Amino acid sequence: MTTIVPQDLDLLPTGQSLEDARAEGERAYELDRAHVFHSWSAQSQIDPRPILASEGSYVWDGTGNRLLDFASQLVNINIGHQHPKVIAAIQDQAAKLCTIAPQYANDARSEAARLIAERTPGDLNKVFFTNGGADANEHAIRMARHHTRRYKVLSRYRSYHGGTDTAINLTGDPRRWPNDYGNSGVVHFHGPFLYRSQFHAENEQQETERALAHLDQLIRFEGPDSFAAIILESVPGTAGVMVPTPGYLAGVREICDRYGIVYIADEVMAGFGRTGKWFAVEHFNVVPDLITFAKGVNSGYVPLGGIAISEKIAATFANRPFPGGLTYSGHPLATAAAVATINVMEDERIVENAARIGSEILGPGLRGLADRHPSIGEVRGLGVLWAIELVIDRATKEPLAPYGSSSPAMNEIIAACKAGGLLPMANFNRIHAVPPCTVTEAEVREGLAILDSVLDIADSHVGS
Amino acid sequence: MTTIVPQDLDLLPTGQSLEDARAEGERAYELDRAHVFHSWSAQSQIDPRPILASEGSYVWDGTGNRLLDFASQLVNINIGHQHPKVIAAIQDQAAKLCTIAPQYANDARSEAARLIAERTPGDLNKVFFTNGGADANEHAIRMARHHTRRYKVLSRYRSYHGGTDTAINLTGDPRRWPNDYGNSGVVHFHGPFLYRSQFHAENEQQETERALAHLDQLIRFEGPDSFAAIILESVPGTAGVMVPTPGYLAGVREICDRYGIVYIADEVMAGFGRTGKWFAVEHFNVVPDLITFAKGVNSGYVPLGGIAISEKIAATFANRPFPGGLTYSGHPLATAAAVATINVMEDERIVENAARIGSEILGPGLRGLADRHPSIGEVRGLGVLWAIELVIDRATKEPLAPYGSSSPAMNEIIAACKAGGLLPMANFNRIHAVPPCTVTEAEVREGLAILDSVLDIADSHVGS
Repeated sequence: MTTIVPQDLDLLPTGQSLEDARAEGERAYELDRAHVFHSWSAQSQIDPRPILASEGSYVWDGTGNRLLDFASQLVNINIGHQHPKVIAAIQDQAAKLCTIAPQYANDARSEAARLIAERTPGDLNKVFFTNGGADANEHAIRMARHHTRRYKVLSRYRSYHGGTDTAINLTGDPRRWPNDYGNSGVVHFHGPFLYRSQFHAENEQQETERALAHLDQLIRFEGPDSFAAIILESVPGTAGVMVPTPGYLAGVREICDRYGIVYIADEVMAGFGRTGKWFAVEHFNVVPDLITFAKGVNSGYVPLGGIAISEKIAATFANRPFPGGLTYSGHPLATAAAVATINVMEDERIVENAARIGSEILGPGLRGLADRHPSIGEVRGLGVLWAIELVIDRATKEPLAPYGSSSPAMNEIIAACKAGGLLPMANFNRIHAVPPCTVTEAEVREGLAILDSVLDIADSHVGS
Repeated sequence: MTTIVPQDLDLLPTGQSLEDARAEGERAYELDRAHVFHSWSAQSQIDPRPILASEGSYVWDGTGNRLLDFASQLVNINIGHQHPKVIAAIQDQAAKLCTIAPQYANDARSEAARLIAERTPGDLNKVFFTNGGADANEHAIRMARHHTRRYKVLSRYRSYHGGTDTAINLTGDPRRWPNDYGNSGVVHFHGPFLYRSQFHAENEQQETERALAHLDQLIRFEGPDSFAAIILESVPGTAGVMVPTPGYLAGVREICDRYGIVYIADEVMAGFGRTGKWFAVEHFNVVPDLITFAKGVNSGYVPLGGIAISEKIAATFANRPFPGGLTYSGHPLATAAAVATINVMEDERIVENAARIGSEILGPGLRGLADRHPSIGEVRGLGVLWAIELVIDRATKEPLAPYGSSSPAMNEIIAACKAGGLLPMANFNRIHAVPPCTVTEAEVREGLAILDSVLDIADSHVGS
């Protein structure tokens, strides 16, 4: 088994001595355990170890081991850790004007809106800024409800749309269950996922046709005039990176047009280069009515999210107040980070890098792993957004961990990744390979080598 | 009428020339109109003018006029604009580590949690961080629902709790109306507000007794076992600065204990020095089960909110997962700004300044205005959180603008404030005087003088 030997460093990339950083990390850990309440967790059953530093595609753990960040944290560090130009932009904006209320014009906010509007497809020319992806989706649903004067919303199973109440009820994964009181107005449907087809399809064309027929029928049985919006991750992220089958999103666009339903593309994870395009919908030549974003817009260096809005929907609120908002909408520090991020991505051809890495290195490399490891049921993805689906049996496709849960085998694999020098993203029976969009060929090969050795563990469970 | 002569400046506090800044502001305005979608607005009916710079208690508008910020933007700049120590802390943290996912320990996050936990009353020792006030309230309600295994929530009329769907449904002001589909599980009640008593009370003691009896009866008629939480701004902010009558919050605490209801104190606006205490509940000697915060925690220099959690509620989630969370929970840049803010507030005795300004200068000054201006029905407040209630008739208390709306008279007053050099906060028939907690005696006197002249306009409508 390949293991990555921790760098022999006395200094971290910050210039801090490892000894000082370790002591700081230990204190951070102690205070964390005393005072910090963590997301999505049983507080006594977690062990939040410190990260001492980060740079590019790497982070340094509490003992000083360097780990290749194949998770991009929560799939948000598209531009890599601690990009010096984005840091400088944040520092400059902090010196100039940290914040100002949303009702005033601000140059960082205006320029970020311009740069985003220039990159969104079609006439999505207006931008409403929020603090993250959840409130972007909440406000997008609100725009759709007021635009259509309808209430109900369609969302797919195997999706994630955020943590606040409406956003989590849009979500099609088990995190919704404890937050679903049956009154959210959200109707869930099945999207295309040929590997585990709900439609008994045998090829992509059948999957597309049957998934669209399923959606259309659901709408006709639920009442075509009752739906305000369909919300869809252009490529579902945490739920499993099911790249839409050809023609599916175009079919969704047609269904939305047929019934007067607003098409919301959730690109919180898939947007800003992750799939090798600025927005993932570009792969499918569709123009949604609203695109929600967060994460990659400024790599999460400062909390930011938002909605790109079509002229038609913006016009609804030209003379009728939009009934939503927030104190930090268009926050100058956050939008200054977005301006720098987008300009750097453009200048350094980072979106192109993500596309090339996906098609030439990461995609082929993962397919090579699938050839060698019988535990891999499928690998799928685009750009730097990939999933490895682990199974006990390729014929039955029985997953290595049940839907909505983990397993000792998966926990063993995750631990082995970390021990080998790789920070993975895992969900149920899947390992996601989601490095920064700036990842180099050598780094990807390093990550693939670690996965290659770790997957022997998964293989040992095949047939068990 | 006193007018403040704009400073004769060629350079803004940033060092930028006024000419350059104006040109930048004009471009920001044009791009804003082309691409920025604004909160709570009919987009064609607003005119978002630029702010070129800010420092301490002042901002500079698009032509270079200096304005005294008696709104603290959206009542969030508690520490004043561009405090150099907070800026330095943001710059240092940006250089060190902009962000890291919530599942790792981080020194800025841990230290912020410690500093907050040390300042909250009772055993509110755990902190869950969010991006702002709305998601703090959403997650607090969720904690209460899962802690009690009940659904319904009580909230008062004349309140504001945030913009996302659950938060806006908690809200007791007209911004809820277009977002209320009757399914939020929120039951609204009347809180104490002697000036416009719902209970026909003639003194504070009566108001307290009757408001508590009203709440108790409502609970008994709605089902005592059905309520998860009561959420209350400790001093309602935007809704009118109705300081609770003596004994009211202690009575709410008793009612919560009697029926097993979680008491959530929303201190998003009232917390972190605004009322002259770290938390407004300290004025009333009560310990809620949860305190939500945002704004003042780091003056909004970086988006941040959160919940301080009692040991009892934290224990519910010791071995049972808390079903909520977000990508930027405990964001290092945001929490580093909080650490610096709290330390600066302590070192520079800023909370004490807010208390002294309120009791010695701003409060007496506003009462002096009330003596001279028949348009003032009441002034009320604590610390640097004050409201001036404007009426057409002191006897009937008919407001100068109707509930939920503005009026030409109010618009004229707001415009005159700005022309006179003061940025006010206005809501319906009220002008709020909510300067930074760092405001000086001289600045308050300057603001009072501007209000004094502007209120002649309000007086001219008396009896109309």
